[in-house]
Amino acid sequence: MGLRTPEEYREGLRDGREVWVRGERVDDVTLHPGIGIAIDHGANAFELAFDDVTRDLATCKINGELSSRYFAPLDTLEAVKTRSRLIEEHTRRARGSLNLIKAVGTDAYAALRSTSFAVDRSEGTEYGERVAAFYAECACADKSVVLAQTDVKGDRSLAPHAQPDPDMHVRIVERRSDGIVVDGAKAHTTMTPVADELVVLPTRAMSEADADYAVAFAIPPATEGLRMICGPLPEPGSTFDRPVSTRNVEIETLTVFDRVFVPWDRVFLAGEHQYAATLATTFATYHRFTAVSYKLPMIELLLGCATLIAELNGVGRASHIREKLARIVQYLELLRSCVQTAAASAVTVEGGWYLPNPVYTNVGKLHFAQDFHTIVQYVQDIAGGFAITAPWEADLLSSDTGPWVRKYMQGAAGSDAELRLRLFNLIRDLTASDYGGYNLVVTLHGEGSLQAQLLQTLRDTDLGPALLAVADAMDVELPSVSTQPTSPLPIVR
Amino acid sequence: MGLRTPEEYREGLRDGREVWVRGERVDDVTLHPGIGIAIDHGANAFELAFDDVTRDLATCKINGELSSRYFAPLDTLEAVKTRSRLIEEHTRRARGSLNLIKAVGTDAYAALRSTSFAVDRSEGTEYGERVAAFYAECACADKSVVLAQTDVKGDRSLAPHAQPDPDMHVRIVERRSDGIVVDGAKAHTTMTPVADELVVLPTRAMSEADADYAVAFAIPPATEGLRMICGPLPEPGSTFDRPVSTRNVEIETLTVFDRVFVPWDRVFLAGEHQYAATLATTFATYHRFTAVSYKLPMIELLLGCATLIAELNGVGRASHIREKLARIVQYLELLRSCVQTAAASAVTVEGGWYLPNPVYTNVGKLHFAQDFHTIVQYVQDIAGGFAITAPWEADLLSSDTGPWVRKYMQGAAGSDAELRLRLFNLIRDLTASDYGGYNLVVTLHGEGSLQAQLLQTLRDTDLGPALLAVADAMDVELPSVSTQPTSPLPIVR
Amino acid sequence: MGLRTPEEYREGLRDGREVWVRGERVDDVTLHPGIGIAIDHGANAFELAFDDVTRDLATCKINGELSSRYFAPLDTLEAVKTRSRLIEEHTRRARGSLNLIKAVGTDAYAALRSTSFAVDRSEGTEYGERVAAFYAECACADKSVVLAQTDVKGDRSLAPHAQPDPDMHVRIVERRSDGIVVDGAKAHTTMTPVADELVVLPTRAMSEADADYAVAFAIPPATEGLRMICGPLPEPGSTFDRPVSTRNVEIETLTVFDRVFVPWDRVFLAGEHQYAATLATTFATYHRFTAVSYKLPMIELLLGCATLIAELNGVGRASHIREKLARIVQYLELLRSCVQTAAASAVTVEGGWYLPNPVYTNVGKLHFAQDFHTIVQYVQDIAGGFAITAPWEADLLSSDTGPWVRKYMQGAAGSDAELRLRLFNLIRDLTASDYGGYNLVVTLHGEGSLQAQLLQTLRDTDLGPALLAVADAMDVELPSVSTQPTSPLPIVR
Amino acid sequence: MGLRTPEEYREGLRDGREVWVRGERVDDVTLHPGIGIAIDHGANAFELAFDDVTRDLATCKINGELSSRYFAPLDTLEAVKTRSRLIEEHTRRARGSLNLIKAVGTDAYAALRSTSFAVDRSEGTEYGERVAAFYAECACADKSVVLAQTDVKGDRSLAPHAQPDPDMHVRIVERRSDGIVVDGAKAHTTMTPVADELVVLPTRAMSEADADYAVAFAIPPATEGLRMICGPLPEPGSTFDRPVSTRNVEIETLTVFDRVFVPWDRVFLAGEHQYAATLATTFATYHRFTAVSYKLPMIELLLGCATLIAELNGVGRASHIREKLARIVQYLELLRSCVQTAAASAVTVEGGWYLPNPVYTNVGKLHFAQDFHTIVQYVQDIAGGFAITAPWEADLLSSDTGPWVRKYMQGAAGSDAELRLRLFNLIRDLTASDYGGYNLVVTLHGEGSLQAQLLQTLRDTDLGPALLAVADAMDVELPSVSTQPTSPLPIVR
Repeated sequence: MGLRTPEEYREGLRDGREVWVRGERVDDVTLHPGIGIAIDHGANAFELAFDDVTRDLATCKINGELSSRYFAPLDTLEAVKTRSRLIEEHTRRARGSLNLIKAVGTDAYAALRSTSFAVDRSEGTEYGERVAAFYAECACADKSVVLAQTDVKGDRSLAPHAQPDPDMHVRIVERRSDGIVVDGAKAHTTMTPVADELVVLPTRAMSEADADYAVAFAIPPATEGLRMICGPLPEPGSTFDRPVSTRNVEIETLTVFDRVFVPWDRVFLAGEHQYAATLATTFATYHRFTAVSYKLPMIELLLGCATLIAELNGVGRASHIREKLARIVQYLELLRSCVQTAAASAVTVEGGWYLPNPVYTNVGKLHFAQDFHTIVQYVQDIAGGFAITAPWEADLLSSDTGPWVRKYMQGAAGSDAELRLRLFNLIRDLTASDYGGYNLVVTLHGEGSLQAQLLQTLRDTDLGPALLAVADAMDVELPSVSTQPTSPLPIVR
Repeated sequence: MGLRTPEEYREGLRDGREVWVRGERVDDVTLHPGIGIAIDHGANAFELAFDDVTRDLATCKINGELSSRYFAPLDTLEAVKTRSRLIEEHTRRARGSLNLIKAVGTDAYAALRSTSFAVDRSEGTEYGERVAAFYAECACADKSVVLAQTDVKGDRSLAPHAQPDPDMHVRIVERRSDGIVVDGAKAHTTMTPVADELVVLPTRAMSEADADYAVAFAIPPATEGLRMICGPLPEPGSTFDRPVSTRNVEIETLTVFDRVFVPWDRVFLAGEHQYAATLATTFATYHRFTAVSYKLPMIELLLGCATLIAELNGVGRASHIREKLARIVQYLELLRSCVQTAAASAVTVEGGWYLPNPVYTNVGKLHFAQDFHTIVQYVQDIAGGFAITAPWEADLLSSDTGPWVRKYMQGAAGSDAELRLRLFNLIRDLTASDYGGYNLVVTLHGEGSLQAQLLQTLRDTDLGPALLAVADAMDVELPSVSTQPTSPLPIVR
Repeated sequence: MGLRTPEEYREGLRDGREVWVRGERVDDVTLHPGIGIAIDHGANAFELAFDDVTRDLATCKINGELSSRYFAPLDTLEAVKTRSRLIEEHTRRARGSLNLIKAVGTDAYAALRSTSFAVDRSEGTEYGERVAAFYAECACADKSVVLAQTDVKGDRSLAPHAQPDPDMHVRIVERRSDGIVVDGAKAHTTMTPVADELVVLPTRAMSEADADYAVAFAIPPATEGLRMICGPLPEPGSTFDRPVSTRNVEIETLTVFDRVFVPWDRVFLAGEHQYAATLATTFATYHRFTAVSYKLPMIELLLGCATLIAELNGVGRASHIREKLARIVQYLELLRSCVQTAAASAVTVEGGWYLPNPVYTNVGKLHFAQDFHTIVQYVQDIAGGFAITAPWEADLLSSDTGPWVRKYMQGAAGSDAELRLRLFNLIRDLTASDYGGYNLVVTLHGEGSLQAQLLQTLRDTDLGPALLAVADAMDVELPSVSTQPTSPLPIVR
Repeated sequence: MGLRTPEEYREGLRDGREVWVRGERVDDVTLHPGIGIAIDHGANAFELAFDDVTRDLATCKINGELSSRYFAPLDTLEAVKTRSRLIEEHTRRARGSLNLIKAVGTDAYAALRSTSFAVDRSEGTEYGERVAAFYAECACADKSVVLAQTDVKGDRSLAPHAQPDPDMHVRIVERRSDGIVVDGAKAHTTMTPVADELVVLPTRAMSEADADYAVAFAIPPATEGLRMICGPLPEPGSTFDRPVSTRNVEIETLTVFDRVFVPWDRVFLAGEHQYAATLATTFATYHRFTAVSYKLPMIELLLGCATLIAELNGVGRASHIREKLARIVQYLELLRSCVQTAAASAVTVEGGWYLPNPVYTNVGKLHFAQDFHTIVQYVQDIAGGFAITAPWEADLLSSDTGPWVRKYMQGAAGSDAELRLRLFNLIRDLTASDYGGYNLVVTLHGEGSLQAQLLQTLRDTDLGPALLAVADAMDVELPSVSTQPTSPLPIVR
């Protein structure tokens, strides 16, 4: 099969999938204006393979065939590093907007692969082969693969089986000879209406009582009983007024599983509850590495906005402005150093692939999620009030208002009102709009909450050297304190 | 005349004023859907006087006639405190959304009044009488009075007269026997298209070379040559989906002065450059007191959102959630204590009125502007990803998707999916939307930038006691260090 | 009896009390150099009554006799405000160093008084009279009264009765006809070796199983079985080099109760476990009000240090320096506004006295404890490296090194090397020394930890208005949510 | 010659150098108790070469002879990385206390080497050979080489030549045939009284008018006219009570140059003012790389303290404690990732050596300096009040107080009172003592102020990619904006 063109990807989406927008069924997702933006955005993932500049980065031979590099085995440190570069460059070409249509499903690939090695070894199951076969098929057919992980959860203080309604987490309701039947719903499933395959993973550790909830599998979005209810969709419009949100936006659904059947060859976990945590955490770690990689271009874009608007406003030399620019640089480069260190010090997991170093991955993710609102504040602070009050393209183009807008939107000597206006609009689009709000919340909650990352960071850390330093400083031997990282990751030590 | 009804206010806006939306002239602002939202919001300011609950707070006798309390003289400490309560309560009834249609113009009143006492005394001018007469007329006719202060500024590193284009700050281009003619443009003028009067003030200190820019005056928005170019407007829609932004939003314009004539009796400063700073700073202080007062209900609303969504999500007992709720309480109550202390320790200015204590006013404003992005982060953090992915009212109402939405949007035991959905939508509307973006930037830049407030805070502070404490601790006499506050405020010491 | 002189106070300490310093018994505390500094510092509390400037503030008539105002009833809002001013002014005269020798014991007075009203009413006990009699005696004899509250706690995750060693919290080990016998130890008891009376309070809520730990009483420090083991003591030295730490330092002990007998008339709680939380929390609130009051002069002193060293270094005009000065001002004035608002909105407790508003008190305490390290950073940042490397008085006085020191420690034009050197030494003493370290930790842990204050703040808050605002914004009625503050305070509502 | 033993190093310091302590001349530095601590600390740098564990890391062949690796050429990326490991490991063995006796002088080596290539090429000078010869001699004789850079500065707002007293920066006062004579004083010169050689560098950019101040050279501390006036010195004492400050402390002097003669072969810059900035900035970058490396063990030690005390206090499972531990981990690992990235992406400078990547170096330094006070706060917060009130070793050893201390200083089940006491003492020593204060200020000001690093970070950054991203997002070409980093570093691009 080999690499698909963007047009082939687009065509593949006309398969009768059940997508709902504001209570109405969408007949053909490719014809819907809002979903269409997500499809265009998704199509970028296929364009990379046909662009002279990105081809080498975006493709590689897999099983002898030229394929998307997203499916490449992470069997060398170089492969980990290259994957990060691919995600970064992909995002850069999507105006800093994350584009998970291939990344998230292959993050799941790596997690399923190493976890299934562990499960199969202990439990005598054959998940490993199924995982390998499924992804070989996806690579060969150049499919986009997305993910559903976060359950709707109901009362978050209760375990899955203890909820008043047992469907608050996706679960096996029937085991048949040919496969399983699942019920439940997943929240915030990204790009499902415009993807080729959907992988489902558990969202947390499961006890024995939760065994039916320890389930992982893959299905095509057009599977019967799968219902995708779209949240907010982007809206088409002037690319002058909204340069990013008219073109590069992901969409999210509440994804309902209404007695969905999954054949056994696509079931990757079915009741082995003691591995739910491993699978969830390993996926989270791979996916946070994707996150730290895709965040770089967004921050770079914000840094560029702040730098340029400072110049155009004539305040580029002011001390407090330069301090804020330096803070944005610091935020960006601390993140970049985490990405590079996570790749350079990746660890080996069961099955022999590499996992980006969990400590640096979590620390990086925590860093960008923790401070992003502050960075947005810096950008808005430097931009000034025009970030929300600047006129629109139509005001500039009108022969009535255009001359006034051109005259009064001038900035520092030599700066062009149109450029300045474009820039204010870009800043509004990125930070002070529906899309800006999406950016803020995705940064906080994408790939897990702040609290989850704080605790994960601590669990991933070997505190031994720190305790040894204390003992040395005090000239004592310490009573035995367990310092092994406690994360349930399939790391080979 | 006396108090006007909301309907009379509405009617008064049909006066041929020149308002532009996306390059098109608006014939009748009351018929425009987006501007209509701003008019409804503005009408609140008039409704208060007819509501049994708020009447006493919102009205008082002025010159023997029942009038809006916004015009009440600030000649007692109690009056300062009551004004703050009025602004707070007014905003609370507008769903936490600031509503400046009467507040900002009367902030200007207080500033013009005390400054004109100083100017008249030194320069032999008669501005005081004009200011008094103008505002007596406004009070009597129950007008809404708004303000234009921030010039477009061009290259912000240059003084007004040194700009390549001399119109980057509003200036007098002709002095006639009957009045002055002004050119220029003001940015971010709030609610001008829906107000009865527009007061114009200088935005900064002016040197002698900038004398033509030291100008203050009042005109009706329908004055010839005054052109209002609207920035983003709110859009009508479901109040379930967007409970605030469909109903309570202010609008902003780029306001162009194209050879606008102002008769002398409405000119309040015309060339006395040494008072531009006093006028600008005094207004800023009064207006920041309005700001610290109107911010309380917005923060209270965010605290309510965070508290309730934590309960509905079933995480209200989690330690990190309670810490974040406590942080929001702290943010709110630190601000409230500044408001109360600023009122209780107001200072006397020329002419005998009170000015809210400038230190506490600036400190309070700085406090809320500095940390608002972080508070938004807490609310979004507690809410979770549904803050951007929750379904809409239409999804709930549809007989197809409604049942699924009701089932899967349930939260903690006993919580209603509809309530939870409304709440996610409210949180999105307030923090992660076009309106949310407006909130973030208005908080930063309304009433002056962070940097302006930092420096103003220091200039308002008497450092004498601190230096004396150092001298005492060291048992020395200090060489004379000037510690008098350096702000150009007309305080009577 | 009436007011005692500092000398009478000093003499009163020669009573055979059992004080230990580095393993050695101290025969006479007034002759010990380190403890002597604490006595001089404590004596300030008596000097205030004889100083013309402070007499009116420091004294008042109690039962017809001129007494220390520390014992004044808090039965008017004015009394609350005046107490705050007294504590502030007292601390200012002690170079910003807290001086609890009268404050903490009278904080306990107010807490014991209102709690005993509640206990006596429910339990038929007679604690109220005992409390009144004890404090009348203290007021009449002008005693210093200090406090022991924090138990040593052992394993902090276990309740008192569940500890492997039952003595980890002070407890009643025997009830006799004439009184009780207690065992245990209290940590961080401030100024006990140099006070006239010691009041003991429980440190936390107690369950029925912990009833023996619900104990409050008063004893003189010379009581048999009371052993005070001193922690770090201040050291005498040059007041040029260490202007504060040679003169104004409190001392702390580990205070052991080894079968200490307490007669019934000095027992204020003995087993009524359900009131332990009320007593502990009420005391904490009164004492945090003391804390927010005594912190003002320390911050003022740091602000003075930063302001003056900026001038002497010639950087007073630099933008980033002015920003940091403004931040210190903001920190100080936010705190001051909390103090004033807490006093102005104090609430009535059982027995009719006022309790400073618990919300503003806790918010203020939290504010200063949270950010003090950052303020210290600003001061050190502005000062520069000489804050730790500046020469000493002896270097200046020496005829060999003096000329070099005078020449090279010059600062901005006209500044005197000696003054600059004194100032660097003061900054070192306050922020980068044994005493500076004490300041940092006392700010964090004095009056309870950050976490305790965060949670207390939330428990003291009525969330009703915030929830109502949410309901209003969404046009719904809320299901009943309990919003009453949950703190166990004896507030009369 | 080869490697010297610690004893040889010690002997070498008895050379009549002029050191002053509190106004008194020190005859023999090796016999002075305070300076002796610094000598023991300095001796560590020599011990590393004789310790089986560290020998390989600490030594290498230079010119065919086994030498200290501190002098190794930085001509490979591996060499940069190894230098960082050496500094880290060296500091770890010094209980987290920085030990610059070999590091700082060899940082100067690298800076002098690359700068002299640039100067010699442009100016025809022969500094390169002198630098090479001097350091070959130091390597061969295994000397410790320290640095004087920060001038006393007088009025910091004035350039060197514009100061009222021209000696506020070190300057050439006479040029002779055999060398130069210099006057002035340097502040905060670290370890000069206990080093073998002193290198002097300019502290800032110099204009032509400041040419005499553009001077760099090396002299032995015993040179006539060099006077070292010690600031605070460490004090001997119990290693139980003060485990670090009794053993591992650097000392600082005010170092006066009173007509000090320097022969030409040790002069490395003498008037070529346009290279002063290059030399100062290049040194700062090398030295900040040393700083980010030496800071790791200190933070690791603080992390260990916090982890262990949480366990011993029985609060290791509390949510807020775990969050704070995770924050310390994050702080540490963000720094470590900067160190690793700075080494891995080092850049080539004139003469062919590597310079650690200036962006990551500055970002890392800024990161640790910015947040160190907060980390200290976390440690103190977790430790509790015993961090300042815990008893001493003598209290534990005394047969009178020992039993009480043992009983009441117990922590969580099974924890030993002695261990807990040692740990509280370690925490006090590191964070809340004279040495703790030194730590705070050194972290802020060592290697330049926060503001210097903020601005340096921005100057080191190539903003081109960020601006390109903005242009791409807006579909425009940007007018040419200069984005080349502006730092005066001798980078070969």
